[in-house]
Amino acid sequence: MKKRGTVSVREVGPRDGLQMVKEVMPTESKLRWISAVVRAGVRQIEVGSFVPATILPQMADTAIVVQRVRHSHPKLYASVLAPNLRGAQDAVAAGAQSIIVPISASEAHSRANVRRSREEQVLQFGKVAEWIHSLGSGKPQIEAAVSTAFGCSMQGSVPEEEVVRITGQLAHLGADIVTLADTLGYATPSQVRGLVRAVRSEIGVDRFGALHLHDTLGTALANVAAGLEEGVRAFDGALGGLGGCPFAPGSVGNVATEDLIYLLESEGYDTGIDLERLLEARAVLREVLPNERLHGRVAAAGVPPTFRLLVD
Amino acid sequence: MKKRGTVSVREVGPRDGLQMVKEVMPTESKLRWISAVVRAGVRQIEVGSFVPATILPQMADTAIVVQRVRHSHPKLYASVLAPNLRGAQDAVAAGAQSIIVPISASEAHSRANVRRSREEQVLQFGKVAEWIHSLGSGKPQIEAAVSTAFGCSMQGSVPEEEVVRITGQLAHLGADIVTLADTLGYATPSQVRGLVRAVRSEIGVDRFGALHLHDTLGTALANVAAGLEEGVRAFDGALGGLGGCPFAPGSVGNVATEDLIYLLESEGYDTGIDLERLLEARAVLREVLPNERLHGRVAAAGVPPTFRLLVD
Repeated sequence: MKKRGTVSVREVGPRDGLQMVKEVMPTESKLRWISAVVRAGVRQIEVGSFVPATILPQMADTAIVVQRVRHSHPKLYASVLAPNLRGAQDAVAAGAQSIIVPISASEAHSRANVRRSREEQVLQFGKVAEWIHSLGSGKPQIEAAVSTAFGCSMQGSVPEEEVVRITGQLAHLGADIVTLADTLGYATPSQVRGLVRAVRSEIGVDRFGALHLHDTLGTALANVAAGLEEGVRAFDGALGGLGGCPFAPGSVGNVATEDLIYLLESEGYDTGIDLERLLEARAVLREVLPNERLHGRVAAAGVPPTFRLLVD
Repeated sequence: MKKRGTVSVREVGPRDGLQMVKEVMPTESKLRWISAVVRAGVRQIEVGSFVPATILPQMADTAIVVQRVRHSHPKLYASVLAPNLRGAQDAVAAGAQSIIVPISASEAHSRANVRRSREEQVLQFGKVAEWIHSLGSGKPQIEAAVSTAFGCSMQGSVPEEEVVRITGQLAHLGADIVTLADTLGYATPSQVRGLVRAVRSEIGVDRFGALHLHDTLGTALANVAAGLEEGVRAFDGALGGLGGCPFAPGSVGNVATEDLIYLLESEGYDTGIDLERLLEARAVLREVLPNERLHGRVAAAGVPPTFRLLVD
């Protein structure tokens, strides 16, 4: 089958997936999991976040994780989350190639997640972006991730025009790329189409980053398909469908990376990721996280006989 | 929100959902379950199948079920599966308003499922259709359901042109409507788009029935969305995601009706079905089928706060 182009997939499990897990995972376990994902062909991984260890002890070793993966996997593009300038400075010091700053489209979620209003967090993003751009050559990419862009468990609906306005502000303040996150998993396919179109019209196609979709209501792959049809070529996923936001009641896992790869490759897109090896990486994840429930339909059902015919 | 039109949803749990369940469900339990589904607003239910009781003891009471639901729910449109003329005659005698004859697009599945080649089963369908059309006024609708239309666990891929050819034969032989079934759950959104377009071009838009989609690989809702965009306005679902074909190794449940209704109503379509009452019907199903694992994300996550805003 002729390929329809490439789609990039970023694994966010070690950050978004792990932040809901209470038991702190040892650094060596994180590195084993990340290495297994790299072996499957994944080239972008969000490896952790720079937040106070008192808030998220799970992320206390992020600087070490960044240093180690940069050393072990020189071709990997390592992203980290940083909610403020202090976090971004720590991230750069550790060697992260991409800094992701979360900005909530929902006022209620913003106050719960980063303890600032939306407007204050947009200004905080501006400070981070200004500092990053002052670094000159070798500076990391600065990404603005708009969370609760498709709805919020506390606020309910989030008006499309507000999301569009915020993305415009973030682009103006220096975001290299802007990503839209369905933190709660409330998005529907036509909502995805509409918001993607409106945001790309506001900030330009090249500045549009990834869609970050959760699967709370089983609609994540339908939303991926809608994004694909609108021309989106970058998606986040978490192996085993881990994930959820500790400050967004009701949020559950990200779209399972293995199901995402199955859909993308079946639809004729080249992700550079080997599905069988990704399922092997899932087995490693199972070993290092034995008490967590993993999701994902491909792992449960097995790779169907039609799949090889499609991708070979 | 302005409605985008109506979509009809048929509940197939009492037939497709139950045929994989080993423990035979008492007739009264089936009737309680069906009544709860009717209370939620469902107007089409596939209530059973007319196959030899030695093969599927679970379906031995289908004639009684049809008679009872016709009496209790005069507004319900009761469908039954009948693989041959004998079954269709029993179905008509019981009072079924719609006879669904399965025809496999995969030769291997056809031989396993109805013990006939595809061509023999197409001829069998012709006999059933001829007899139904001879009944005159009050005759039931005759539907041809093309199973394994998107792939088969035994055969692998099923070429689109073969499916299209079979649907043409079935229309020519007198099918009132032709339904496409993804028995294994291997379909992808672009495959759905392509096959729907080709089949509608072959048999005409008015003769195109429902899409019957399984969720083996998590793609069912993405495939529903693709069908919607192609103009399909009828879908099958099974409460709790029950289902699977005993003669198709690896097949698992239908798309969960509750998740299907969530998606359709969220997307602005009027299904006439109340999601909260459907979740109450699921509780009844849980009672009458305590040992079976139910699927469905809406039931697990709860109806999100954005949903009422959309449908009110």
